[in-house]
Amino acid sequence: MTTSFYAPVDHFSDDRVVLPEDEARHAVGVLRHGVGDVLRVVDGEGRAVFVRLDKATKTAVEGIVEREDEREIEPPIRVTIGIGMIKHRSRFETLLEKATELGVRDIVPLITWRTERDRIREERAEGILVSAMKQSHRSWLPRLHEPTPVSTFVETSQHDARVICHEAHGDENASEIRLRRDSSLALMIGPEGGFTEDEVGDAVQHGWQLMQFGPRRLRAETAAIAAIASIIGAVESQPRFTI
Amino acid sequence: MTTSFYAPVDHFSDDRVVLPEDEARHAVGVLRHGVGDVLRVVDGEGRAVFVRLDKATKTAVEGIVEREDEREIEPPIRVTIGIGMIKHRSRFETLLEKATELGVRDIVPLITWRTERDRIREERAEGILVSAMKQSHRSWLPRLHEPTPVSTFVETSQHDARVICHEAHGDENASEIRLRRDSSLALMIGPEGGFTEDEVGDAVQHGWQLMQFGPRRLRAETAAIAAIASIIGAVESQPRFTI
Repeated sequence: MTTSFYAPVDHFSDDRVVLPEDEARHAVGVLRHGVGDVLRVVDGEGRAVFVRLDKATKTAVEGIVEREDEREIEPPIRVTIGIGMIKHRSRFETLLEKATELGVRDIVPLITWRTERDRIREERAEGILVSAMKQSHRSWLPRLHEPTPVSTFVETSQHDARVICHEAHGDENASEIRLRRDSSLALMIGPEGGFTEDEVGDAVQHGWQLMQFGPRRLRAETAAIAAIASIIGAVESQPRFTI
Repeated sequence: MTTSFYAPVDHFSDDRVVLPEDEARHAVGVLRHGVGDVLRVVDGEGRAVFVRLDKATKTAVEGIVEREDEREIEPPIRVTIGIGMIKHRSRFETLLEKATELGVRDIVPLITWRTERDRIREERAEGILVSAMKQSHRSWLPRLHEPTPVSTFVETSQHDARVICHEAHGDENASEIRLRRDSSLALMIGPEGGFTEDEVGDAVQHGWQLMQFGPRRLRAETAAIAAIASIIGAVESQPRFTI
């Protein structure tokens, strides 16, 4: 099973699935699938199924859901990443891809004091999210939100745990967070140049916990990817390394 | 302190440092440094110092070491990453940059059964390593090795701990590794399509430990970045998340 296909929820009716046109072309035109083959199809909202094709032309690929894929591929917590808009588009796109592969559910580009960009090429971004979801066999398509002022994100976030990544603030920094299964975590990463002290102070005042991830200065997208990998890896009980 | 400069060891003599020409141009031409300013300079072999300039023209920037930078910015273990050569150059370059920022010391591109590329643009790669070292304030410049057959790497690696990342092998998989301070760890990641069972078997026979990082299928460079971030984060006692 090397590929998953994506059919949004409105392409399902009862146990029947019709692949979108571009997915149909890929399945038949490129991968040479035909009637009788079983494909793994995800709906982007948490459902993954195995579908046996009963129609397979280059423009129409349809079939019946044989069974659900019950494997636990999604992480046990819902991670939202809020990140200062990144100036270089390719770095932002690297973040979108890696965050998706690693299991993030929501990505909120933040408009901050030091942000130098405020637009996203949405269609291109959506393509990256879909590819990474299929590649990683996830069943949730991460949602890329509209660029949001950091103060709005800080004030309105309803997540069970809220963490702002920032350089050392000494004893103020939290060193451990316990999460419940299915709880939500918001993780906020600054833009190039970091958050201002005012922005950090505002978050702390609204109950966000300060955390520092390591002594090296990381680019914004590297910090985000590293924090996501560490956190989701830890709650999934991946291999542990100690010293 | 937002920038570090790089002067290879042969640019130091006693406590005197002469910046290489391109670093000199950057220091004076772009950042407008002058006589009397103090710069942070790293030698790429573990030394970071503060240098007070006593000469500053666009082609010659020199000074005296005032003091060593004693902060612990390098990780407490030496990580080598062996990774199947990546077909897309930009993905390999993302790996070089992120591995450097996150603290890796050696990068060995592996020639494996499923590898589809066997050349690296060395000058370009070196530039990426140097930039990422300076950006992250590291003092070690990672070494990018020649492309190496996976069997050679498996057989000749002398690291204290050796881990091969691969999909679930059930009970064979290790779940915990204890490392000593200053010990060395080799981490091997497959190419697109993964290692063959023969390659995995060979590694296991040579004492490598199998590990799986999470249930999602990751691209090679994502798997490498995630494993590095998790491992170095854990041994540096970064914030802990539990469920």
